Amino acid sequence: MRVVLKYGGSSVATIEKIQKIAEYIIGLKEKYEDVVVVVSAMGKTTDRLISLAKEITENPSQRELDSLMATGEQQSIALLSIALNSKGQKAISLTGFQAGIRTSGVHTKNKIESISSDSIEGYLKNGNVVIVAGFQGINENGDITTLGRGGSDTSAVALAAALNCECRIYTDVDGIYSVDPRLYPKAKFLDRISYEEMMEMANLGAGVMETRAVELGKKFGIPIFVGRSLSEIGGTYIMEKNVALEEKLVTGISITKEIVVTTISNIPFSSENIAKIFSIIDGCGLNINMITQNLNKYMRAELSFSSQLSEKYLLNQIIDKIRADFPECDINLCEHLGMLSIVGVGMINNSGIAGKFFSVLSKNGINFYQITTSEISISCSIDRENIQKAVEAVAQEFSL
Amino acid sequence: MRVVLKYGGSSVATIEKIQKIAEYIIGLKEKYEDVVVVVSAMGKTTDRLISLAKEITENPSQRELDSLMATGEQQSIALLSIALNSKGQKAISLTGFQAGIRTSGVHTKNKIESISSDSIEGYLKNGNVVIVAGFQGINENGDITTLGRGGSDTSAVALAAALNCECRIYTDVDGIYSVDPRLYPKAKFLDRISYEEMMEMANLGAGVMETRAVELGKKFGIPIFVGRSLSEIGGTYIMEKNVALEEKLVTGISITKEIVVTTISNIPFSSENIAKIFSIIDGCGLNINMITQNLNKYMRAELSFSSQLSEKYLLNQIIDKIRADFPECDINLCEHLGMLSIVGVGMINNSGIAGKFFSVLSKNGINFYQITTSEISISCSIDRENIQKAVEAVAQEFSL
Repeated sequence: MRVVLKYGGSSVATIEKIQKIAEYIIGLKEKYEDVVVVVSAMGKTTDRLISLAKEITENPSQRELDSLMATGEQQSIALLSIALNSKGQKAISLTGFQAGIRTSGVHTKNKIESISSDSIEGYLKNGNVVIVAGFQGINENGDITTLGRGGSDTSAVALAAALNCECRIYTDVDGIYSVDPRLYPKAKFLDRISYEEMMEMANLGAGVMETRAVELGKKFGIPIFVGRSLSEIGGTYIMEKNVALEEKLVTGISITKEIVVTTISNIPFSSENIAKIFSIIDGCGLNINMITQNLNKYMRAELSFSSQLSEKYLLNQIIDKIRADFPECDINLCEHLGMLSIVGVGMINNSGIAGKFFSVLSKNGINFYQITTSEISISCSIDRENIQKAVEAVAQEFSL
Repeated sequence: MRVVLKYGGSSVATIEKIQKIAEYIIGLKEKYEDVVVVVSAMGKTTDRLISLAKEITENPSQRELDSLMATGEQQSIALLSIALNSKGQKAISLTGFQAGIRTSGVHTKNKIESISSDSIEGYLKNGNVVIVAGFQGINENGDITTLGRGGSDTSAVALAAALNCECRIYTDVDGIYSVDPRLYPKAKFLDRISYEEMMEMANLGAGVMETRAVELGKKFGIPIFVGRSLSEIGGTYIMEKNVALEEKLVTGISITKEIVVTTISNIPFSSENIAKIFSIIDGCGLNINMITQNLNKYMRAELSFSSQLSEKYLLNQIIDKIRADFPECDINLCEHLGMLSIVGVGMINNSGIAGKFFSVLSKNGINFYQITTSEISISCSIDRENIQKAVEAVAQEFSL
């Protein structure tokens, strides 16, 4: 039997923690014949490296930033391998290129194109625990690439797909709750959740796992376990809907605390213009969530979209380009907002959820602005100061 | 015209220094069409990484230590490239494997086997300053390797040979002096020195440049300039003897402050036994200098050799292995010693130098223990506390 384990940055933040993870892995080798471990960079290493680059310039070369950031994982895998070897367990560390992880896309936000697992299989056959750098790969030019923040989850699930085994993501939370327990301590713990619900939760800001990783798990039917590092209790399985759960109406609440809503008004309306704006956004690699568009009687369009406040440096690049291409447009930013979403596979077959959601907000004096919906979720932007109140009211209404 | 520049760790120790190096390189681009820059890790990064590994175990896996250490240079090259790009100079960073640097040998002490410079040539053709990670490469198994401390000099000279151009090593000293000016402030500055003399100086502890780098320069006839970072004055050219200088008797003094002399006595004498001891030493990768051997009347050999005190962890491994294979031997360490050498291409044709050297030491009450000689050098071990006195006496005697 084989397994892919993944440890996040906080699980390997110190040498002491790395030693404990090494001991845990040696214990697991009794159960699993083949163990592959994906590791993130130690603690805040990635942030520290980015801030070094930012000391030089606000807009560092993205190719070079990738190469710089990738050193964080290269260090943590080498140290974990040193720890395993020193305790008598053969182990070998592999960077993205050594593990055969090919990527494509824009720098700092690459996607995994393929994994040639021959070298991993070879090292496993020789009795090694194989430790792979998460978050990184190599593109067709031979450049070192990264997969975007949280990309180590994606590395782990992609490796589990390539090796056809279970993926166990170890982190600093017990698993998945219906609502972030830091915001709503009475939140219910979920033993199981469907890929679809988890994707909405991840996308909408639950922050426990990267959406792409869950999507990849769904695509290849890889069961994903999420649980606390070094703990034997708790943990949530992310799996197919039909095996996962009876269909609850609303499974969870997801919050993104800091968003910025950009509104571009007075756009001369044509599909070409709107497409051009989105291609500028794509070109800069900004992740946007809620998108809404209106048309006024003078055939001028108004386009709004939300993005993470933490990516405002990308947003600023986009605004400069839009200003250059559409000098007649007005651009306004609203930065005091957060996003609130409810998620549940049952929604699609049940009417009245939206009404109940919005009436509970208005009853509690909480204004909502943009609204977007998917088959299994409803999201809206609200004032950041109202997030706590909104979570409590909605959680009670839907018995989460 | 093209050039390979090399900056050591202290030249890129801070972001501010990296910015200054970037500006200097942009200035150089007016003179040189093609510029390749080899960079070491920032400041004390390599030491910090090694001590992380040592927190886990005294004997870390050498393959993993290589991969860990190589991140230091990957960071500094990415940051220098970010600085150049932000100032409008196209630049690209290449790790050892990206630059096509193939190595062979034991981990942490690899040798450069070959450089396929195609990718570097391609990037140069597109107008890039190409920044290459010093000190590292990749072996035939695809493992990341390092070249040993100071290996960045070797990387730079090997690249200059592959690209057929001059190599300029920038460091935190003005160039080469006849004696380390920190020990003997009246030391003469040398504008030029021959490869051979520099090799002896490097080997014997002058510490300005790696011997292998000078050897490589000699082999491929690459002129090597050594000078202070960001300074336009001073600097020493290392080049062929006949063009370099009139033959002085003694060109310089070289000091290794902290050595340990290991004496193994009561070895049952046979060539096999002595060869076996040296193969144990080679296997652990310890660099040894002075070697002496005596045979007593009972056909028991006594073997002594000196090594750097900083490599005592390797020496301990060797002693354990020798004790296991030769339980009847006595092993003694003498740790309070330093090494003093005089170097000069003129020595070979002039008698009386050795006599002058030893008599000046004894006149000043300085005991010397082991003695070894080469065609252009004489070395001996002395008590560490006498080094300063010995340097002054010998420098005056030979007018250095």
